[in-house]
Amino acid sequence: MSAADPRLTPLVQSLPATVPFTGPEALERRAGLPFRARLGANESVFGPSPRAIAAMREAAAEAWKYGDPESHDLRAALAQAHDIAPENIVVGAGIDGLLDSLVRLTVAPGTPVVASAGSYPTFAYHVAGYGGTLVPVPYTADHEDPDRLIARAAETGARLIYLSNPDNPMGSWHDAATIQRMIEAVPDHALLVLDEAYIDFAPPGTAPAIDPLDPRVIRMRTFSKAHGLAGARVGYAIGQAGLIAAFHKVRNHFGMSRAAQAGALAALADPDWLADVLARVGDARDRITRIAADNALTALPSATNFVAVDCGADGRFARKVLDNLGRDGVFVRMPFVAPQDRCIRITVGRPEDLELLSEALPRALAAARHDAEEP
Amino acid sequence: MSAADPRLTPLVQSLPATVPFTGPEALERRAGLPFRARLGANESVFGPSPRAIAAMREAAAEAWKYGDPESHDLRAALAQAHDIAPENIVVGAGIDGLLDSLVRLTVAPGTPVVASAGSYPTFAYHVAGYGGTLVPVPYTADHEDPDRLIARAAETGARLIYLSNPDNPMGSWHDAATIQRMIEAVPDHALLVLDEAYIDFAPPGTAPAIDPLDPRVIRMRTFSKAHGLAGARVGYAIGQAGLIAAFHKVRNHFGMSRAAQAGALAALADPDWLADVLARVGDARDRITRIAADNALTALPSATNFVAVDCGADGRFARKVLDNLGRDGVFVRMPFVAPQDRCIRITVGRPEDLELLSEALPRALAAARHDAEEP
Repeated sequence: MSAADPRLTPLVQSLPATVPFTGPEALERRAGLPFRARLGANESVFGPSPRAIAAMREAAAEAWKYGDPESHDLRAALAQAHDIAPENIVVGAGIDGLLDSLVRLTVAPGTPVVASAGSYPTFAYHVAGYGGTLVPVPYTADHEDPDRLIARAAETGARLIYLSNPDNPMGSWHDAATIQRMIEAVPDHALLVLDEAYIDFAPPGTAPAIDPLDPRVIRMRTFSKAHGLAGARVGYAIGQAGLIAAFHKVRNHFGMSRAAQAGALAALADPDWLADVLARVGDARDRITRIAADNALTALPSATNFVAVDCGADGRFARKVLDNLGRDGVFVRMPFVAPQDRCIRITVGRPEDLELLSEALPRALAAARHDAEEP
Repeated sequence: MSAADPRLTPLVQSLPATVPFTGPEALERRAGLPFRARLGANESVFGPSPRAIAAMREAAAEAWKYGDPESHDLRAALAQAHDIAPENIVVGAGIDGLLDSLVRLTVAPGTPVVASAGSYPTFAYHVAGYGGTLVPVPYTADHEDPDRLIARAAETGARLIYLSNPDNPMGSWHDAATIQRMIEAVPDHALLVLDEAYIDFAPPGTAPAIDPLDPRVIRMRTFSKAHGLAGARVGYAIGQAGLIAAFHKVRNHFGMSRAAQAGALAALADPDWLADVLARVGDARDRITRIAADNALTALPSATNFVAVDCGADGRFARKVLDNLGRDGVFVRMPFVAPQDRCIRITVGRPEDLELLSEALPRALAAARHDAEEP
């Protein structure tokens, strides 16, 4: 019906009915039973700061008030934290919402956009949604390839170049000097979309210095990962003031949850909690690496809150392992482009979550190998 | 910078830097003091259901989980409440967010859209944001004019026809039979956007029956008004399944706050609270009408949680009254098109809020008249 509805734009009529991700709740409804370990969406199972929880609880009774459309207090705190001006920051409903606005601002039907094949599906979803043409660049040794991304952008006249550092879904990363060289190489017609959703988990020296006067890059940050506020939907973009001002021409000004604004502000003021989470994430990454080794699998190095584990065969095999884990109550996801799809992507969990993983993984592997041996 | 940035689409470069509304917090920051009575944004000062508050407080600790992108439980409850299928409902970040998606789905540069001159600015903002051409139709006796809206849509080949019933900013309304006749008269090329944000406050017989098979109309509902959850950002659209399916091709699937989903679900399950709020809204409307009469002003009949008060002169005079009220700590808004701009729009408040209004209004009127008498 909708595809044939002449009241829809030709672009919309041409769009597929696919979604970037199926949520874990939908998978649970299909399976008819809840997951025992939620390790698939790179959420922070350690939860948000108690200060953020308290702030959101306090804000609940004030939910009758719209949130401040300017997110003034949050932007002021973020500006101070990054030593930039509030005019360099736009707050939105997660990086997903900000990517939607950014693509809308820059991509018209047919506009070329460069991204790594198999990188963030939601970015590709927005590019397709505005009629852009995605130019895929393969990973190099499980890393996004800055030089090839820049080269393809120059060849195609791309408007946007998307790179996540650290990378999702592989967990790999480049150092700040490499990223800075990439920024310097951005063609005049292009803008580098530097998705730093996982930057809090990365080693020092991963993020280049923020230059609020640099027109060549826009940085995306979020409270959904290290700050444990995925369900609150708070992200922000950092860029040149003129570029940030363009967001205000199209964004949903009253789109922010008031409680989410309060929660993010409180989370920002609790660096001790963040440090504690980062320590627990490090321990959990090590544990996942050991669990992989115990099963004769290789865990890839990670600068994020998840670990890509090489299942040692092809994507079909990894998919079987993932499905088997899911049937066993352990929710994980996986890359969807070869050869990265030889891996499953496991979000860090609490010790009890990873204990379930350690029990389920051998069973999942054995069943997948048994299937593979069948004629 | 942004206007000249060649990386922005020509459409975006052509957009003005205006916003639909300036938030009360921004007005407070400019004035350097907080409002004593927040009666300008049609929020429900009576607050959300205690059950909704409890649900959001409980959800705060779970904020590390993304919300269900399908809003399954909320859609199921809404479907039951309206005796339709979940496939006829899409949940979004308030009606503002849903209008953004709807305009994106249907409006290309140059596409004509019909709405009443002076009706909801955020709808006009989205139409402009996607390059649509807004065809304004004047109010008739402070009511939106269904016949003229339909006629102009037929003349212009409009893709969308926007009508709010009850109407914002005037508070006027049409009965269900009148709206049903309008639905029947929608041209084939068009879709009626029936914004029913205030329908809970209207007398019985204001909303036509919902026909989930009717392709000519999409209904917009919200938890921001009677349910007192403006700060949570939960709205929903009801329409033919094919049209609703189109939203899923472009919407931000993980854009809903998890706590907001829980709060809306709990609010829906507390009809007693809703009934209590409606009773208090009715009393407050009467009180505002008396306050207007005490000042020799006419309050227009209202089927909403606000009252348009005719200040008895032109828009310039009403603006002075509004500014004076603001300086006195009473936040109200006003229509922005003549002759409706002879009114100020006062949201219903608690007795203490309206006491402040009753004290401030005579002063505001006297000062405005004094200014008017100056040469």
